[in-house]
Amino acid sequence: MATAPILDASNVLELAEPLPLDGGQVLPGVRIAYETAGTLNAARDNAIFVAHALTGDHHIVSNHPKTGKPGWWVRMVGPGKPIDTNRYFVICANVIGSCMGSTGPSSIGPDGRPWGMRFPVITVRDMVRAHVALLDALGIERLHAVVGGSMGGMQALSLAANFPDRAGAVLVIASTARHSAQNIAFHEVGRQAIMADPEWREGAYYGFGKGPEKGLSVARMAAHITYLSEAGLTSKFGRRLQDRNEKTFGFDADFQVESYLRYQGLSFTDRFDANSYLYITRAMDYFDLAEEHGGLLANAFAGSKARFCLVSFDTDWLYPTAESRNVVHALNAAGLPVSFVELSAPYGHDSFLLDVPALDRVVAGFLGESR
Amino acid sequence: MATAPILDASNVLELAEPLPLDGGQVLPGVRIAYETAGTLNAARDNAIFVAHALTGDHHIVSNHPKTGKPGWWVRMVGPGKPIDTNRYFVICANVIGSCMGSTGPSSIGPDGRPWGMRFPVITVRDMVRAHVALLDALGIERLHAVVGGSMGGMQALSLAANFPDRAGAVLVIASTARHSAQNIAFHEVGRQAIMADPEWREGAYYGFGKGPEKGLSVARMAAHITYLSEAGLTSKFGRRLQDRNEKTFGFDADFQVESYLRYQGLSFTDRFDANSYLYITRAMDYFDLAEEHGGLLANAFAGSKARFCLVSFDTDWLYPTAESRNVVHALNAAGLPVSFVELSAPYGHDSFLLDVPALDRVVAGFLGESR
Repeated sequence: MATAPILDASNVLELAEPLPLDGGQVLPGVRIAYETAGTLNAARDNAIFVAHALTGDHHIVSNHPKTGKPGWWVRMVGPGKPIDTNRYFVICANVIGSCMGSTGPSSIGPDGRPWGMRFPVITVRDMVRAHVALLDALGIERLHAVVGGSMGGMQALSLAANFPDRAGAVLVIASTARHSAQNIAFHEVGRQAIMADPEWREGAYYGFGKGPEKGLSVARMAAHITYLSEAGLTSKFGRRLQDRNEKTFGFDADFQVESYLRYQGLSFTDRFDANSYLYITRAMDYFDLAEEHGGLLANAFAGSKARFCLVSFDTDWLYPTAESRNVVHALNAAGLPVSFVELSAPYGHDSFLLDVPALDRVVAGFLGESR
Repeated sequence: MATAPILDASNVLELAEPLPLDGGQVLPGVRIAYETAGTLNAARDNAIFVAHALTGDHHIVSNHPKTGKPGWWVRMVGPGKPIDTNRYFVICANVIGSCMGSTGPSSIGPDGRPWGMRFPVITVRDMVRAHVALLDALGIERLHAVVGGSMGGMQALSLAANFPDRAGAVLVIASTARHSAQNIAFHEVGRQAIMADPEWREGAYYGFGKGPEKGLSVARMAAHITYLSEAGLTSKFGRRLQDRNEKTFGFDADFQVESYLRYQGLSFTDRFDANSYLYITRAMDYFDLAEEHGGLLANAFAGSKARFCLVSFDTDWLYPTAESRNVVHALNAAGLPVSFVELSAPYGHDSFLLDVPALDRVVAGFLGESR
């Protein structure tokens, strides 16, 4: 038995045709960076598309080229793992609008200069259109499954709704069918923090030093709080001081949680483009699957024949269980097979990326089921 | 029967002695701006001190001098109201560190220049020391009650713990005995947003234009989200668009919640000093009443003979009910009389400032009880 190369981390697809966008424009010269793991079988029916979250990328199992850290879902994807690359051909593509190889605001536009804020505003459905173009190029008519957490879950739902023949199973983790007022509010704080930074230069900062690092750092800090649970923060940091025994009565990072947040903000600026942060948060805020389908979420799934699995976490206050339940009710109304589980995990929204063995069992079980 | 002036909105007390601070320094030349309503009786035993929240001030019933809006607790304080000025002499003082008349970083320091970041870091207990100096000056030995919501509740608890003879009753609304890791995290985001603004100039922006308005605005936006409940935001704004029928596919404030938050941020900069925001948030983050008293919260109340009432709101996720319950348990352990109620209100943390009739009844009832 031949062993095929199981990892190809540096693929780029260039689309021959401009990509039509929800905003009415078309995006020319689209490049899609993607990674695959495992082997596509002869029937071409063992592919699983994994969609990444807001600041994620296609390096799902390969080391991140900038940080050197292991792929973001290496605990879930690999030989013998819940998404088993001995069995499945796993594809992960950087979303358009991002900054890790797919076309986004930091890419060179048709006039030879970076797009910046001239890049068109995109939607989650636009991201999915690019994914479908990639599936076409790979000759994959129908995925065994589409899987995603957080914004990845939005893409999975959008693919199921808008391209109902392209996936046999849809696994949505810690996600939602629409961004709530509170979700929009937190993103707006982040965008305003970036735009308040004079180094942002109305988005035309490429080639001018380091860009709006301070603003992007503040945006990341605010967002990061929403990814963690209050209890998780308390057990991880509490009110413990950072490398000192006494409060300094100053404005240094006295508390560990301050030091941690500052680090999260600062290190993010090394790997992410501020304009991409603006565009992708905007896409998420625009996401409302019901609105796209006449105002009734069940309608979104009217053409689907897929089976679904929704997973939420009890400590996730960004996309709480009620949001998953909302999707489950719509799928029930549409008469589609759906399983739903709320898992107990202490880490808040970030649980989908962390060590939650119950999630592994749910993922492996759902993907392995036959219809 | 003579009618005494019931409102005096423009008092300033200048302390003759420097105020000792928890950080080890002393603060010279302290001015305390305060407002009173009602009449102090001959026995001088009908005074109620109301402590204000982070961005509040002493204009509890008088119109705000900058915004022209009614006093911040005019619905609670006045003739025939739950804190009845026909019966009680109500005092509210601007906390030190603030910017509405009491000494803070925007005040002129001993060298004739604004303090800026040379102002000493203060604590909630330092604020209370200033309040007690005011009570001394007013000849009030013992308050009928001390009352406060949010940071005002922290001051009430601190006064009860550190000056146990000065109040007969302590009413704490939507507050906590210590700032949690999540509380600190949100404040740190706000401070970093201010400090990231080049107009902050290391705090020495007085006399240079408008100061760090953009940073302060972002800080206020982030904080404001924590004052509201997710459900409240959804019912108030949902995903409704602002003055338009279609999304613009741009970065304007398409959603009402974005427009609202931007307004909240911007209007805040007209009435509040950025350095004061740094100092007062720092004081709140440092607040840990148990830590001040050997690590056991019950010890904080060992010398108290007051009766207590704790009120929380079911939708307050900034200082959730568990924080109030924590104080109640400590008071129980200290053998002190305490009543506790969790009220149902849709507005989140801000409920203490809004129309919650059940709160009015609790406040009136608790203040009117005889021991």
